[in-house]
Amino acid sequence: MNYSKYNLPAVFSPVLTPINADGGPDTARLLKQCQWLDANGVGQAIFGTNSEANSFSGAQKIDALEKLIAGGLNSKHMMPGTGACSIDETVAMTRAAVSAGCSGVLMLSPFYYKDVSDQGLYSFYAKVIEKVADSRLKIYVYNIPQVTKILLSVPLLERLVKDFPTTVVGIKDSSGDWPYTESVIKALAGSGFQVYAGSETFLMRNLRAGGVGCISATANVNPRAIAALAGKWQDAGADQAQADLDIVRSVFAKYPMIPAMKTAVAHFSKDSSWAHVLPPLIDLTAEQQKALLLDLEKIQFTMTGL
Amino acid sequence: MNYSKYNLPAVFSPVLTPINADGGPDTARLLKQCQWLDANGVGQAIFGTNSEANSFSGAQKIDALEKLIAGGLNSKHMMPGTGACSIDETVAMTRAAVSAGCSGVLMLSPFYYKDVSDQGLYSFYAKVIEKVADSRLKIYVYNIPQVTKILLSVPLLERLVKDFPTTVVGIKDSSGDWPYTESVIKALAGSGFQVYAGSETFLMRNLRAGGVGCISATANVNPRAIAALAGKWQDAGADQAQADLDIVRSVFAKYPMIPAMKTAVAHFSKDSSWAHVLPPLIDLTAEQQKALLLDLEKIQFTMTGL
Repeated sequence: MNYSKYNLPAVFSPVLTPINADGGPDTARLLKQCQWLDANGVGQAIFGTNSEANSFSGAQKIDALEKLIAGGLNSKHMMPGTGACSIDETVAMTRAAVSAGCSGVLMLSPFYYKDVSDQGLYSFYAKVIEKVADSRLKIYVYNIPQVTKILLSVPLLERLVKDFPTTVVGIKDSSGDWPYTESVIKALAGSGFQVYAGSETFLMRNLRAGGVGCISATANVNPRAIAALAGKWQDAGADQAQADLDIVRSVFAKYPMIPAMKTAVAHFSKDSSWAHVLPPLIDLTAEQQKALLLDLEKIQFTMTGL
Repeated sequence: MNYSKYNLPAVFSPVLTPINADGGPDTARLLKQCQWLDANGVGQAIFGTNSEANSFSGAQKIDALEKLIAGGLNSKHMMPGTGACSIDETVAMTRAAVSAGCSGVLMLSPFYYKDVSDQGLYSFYAKVIEKVADSRLKIYVYNIPQVTKILLSVPLLERLVKDFPTTVVGIKDSSGDWPYTESVIKALAGSGFQVYAGSETFLMRNLRAGGVGCISATANVNPRAIAALAGKWQDAGADQAQADLDIVRSVFAKYPMIPAMKTAVAHFSKDSSWAHVLPPLIDLTAEQQKALLLDLEKIQFTMTGL
């Protein structure tokens, strides 16, 4: 495991969630997957966008988290997603993660209403922090405007960091908008704010600019190589390693990413139950699965030890 | 109460939700408000967008629903919002509404992911229906693309009605896109599909075209006049009555609607606790409140019996 200077894994994956017959998280398979990721140097940001977090209920997620911890995962390598549209649900999930000893929580903004104000978002986070009422709480806010239609403005981040300096400690930026990421680093990284890029595509740029790592979908399928780059980014050959990562990502990005990654896990683990997503997402068609596996073969991609 | 030909209230309001000190629904005040709406001819579509439904947890909403029913509300006049991002949460809330004997449920589409397919949405609804497994279930799908970024296509609606003819029985269309509303009526109203417009602005057009009524924010503050028009829409003077409704709506629409309507309820009920919304929404400023009340005075607007 390569760590950031803040002692957290430098690379996390929003862990894909296998689904049981009742439509809930298959906690046994999920535990195994988290163990595999950990062994390959990647922390577990369970219940992110790529985990289909919002397709499960709060109760299902809290139950799964408890089972993962009971199964022996290292909570210091975990950063569960806990943000929901309601303060009450966000608080319940956040408390569960803090009680489990997780390093941090990845907190989505309340995403139902559109055109919400910075003041409204600030009040939401402030109320969650007040209600969780636990000094161990470390929040990484989650910026993913293409899904939430909310861009976390730099002034909002500055206000949160100023008012909750030991609690609001970082961000996952999935905007894909590098000038924005860079502006957050310039404004806040100097005072210890931890900026994770939302994709390994930006890993080198982020680390060179003063960010700490990445939390990336593709870390579900290509963990070892991504985690390795986070440890040798100042070495010769790092740019080539970045280019190699980009090739793998570009193959998955040709398909709907979540079912494509699940197809890869199903294929390489020889466990077809992995290939399914929950509505409103849909599984890859048989044709898409075949094309993806052919594309992966062409680049000699494999997942070992699954 | 004016009823549609399907024996449901022709006008519903997405009931504003008063908030208690802990940030949950203030069920005593909510009960009183529902009773006032009912007495003024308006059914209660509790837990809609204007109810800040997604700012409460499922547990908070189910508890409130049970207290409203225990408080004596007529469940035949109720159409609770039950849609959430996850199948599990949608099923739990829907079961509670069906068990309570509600006339129908207003079901939002799963709104986290963007660019979801008709197939994915179909599977979501089909799975919810399968899991609720109750022949009393009557679903009114909720089309509000400006918030969900999902437009329920006519082919999707046709497929749902074909496969679940006694369950998927209507729609609330809040798109504000009259050609779309009209296309749904043309495709499906003939076979008994109930089209409610999402605002009283479209009440006359909707009734004339073959729709059944409206489910409208402003029915929270102007219930009697809107409900009256649904009963006399074929009379002389109906167009003038529609124009009068539009004047009231246009005043509220000058402000953020939800806190503006709550300000009006607080003012006319002399109960200032009504004036608050939950984050990420924000209360009107003192200046906005003053301006709104002045605007309402100019059109001699009042709410009696609160």
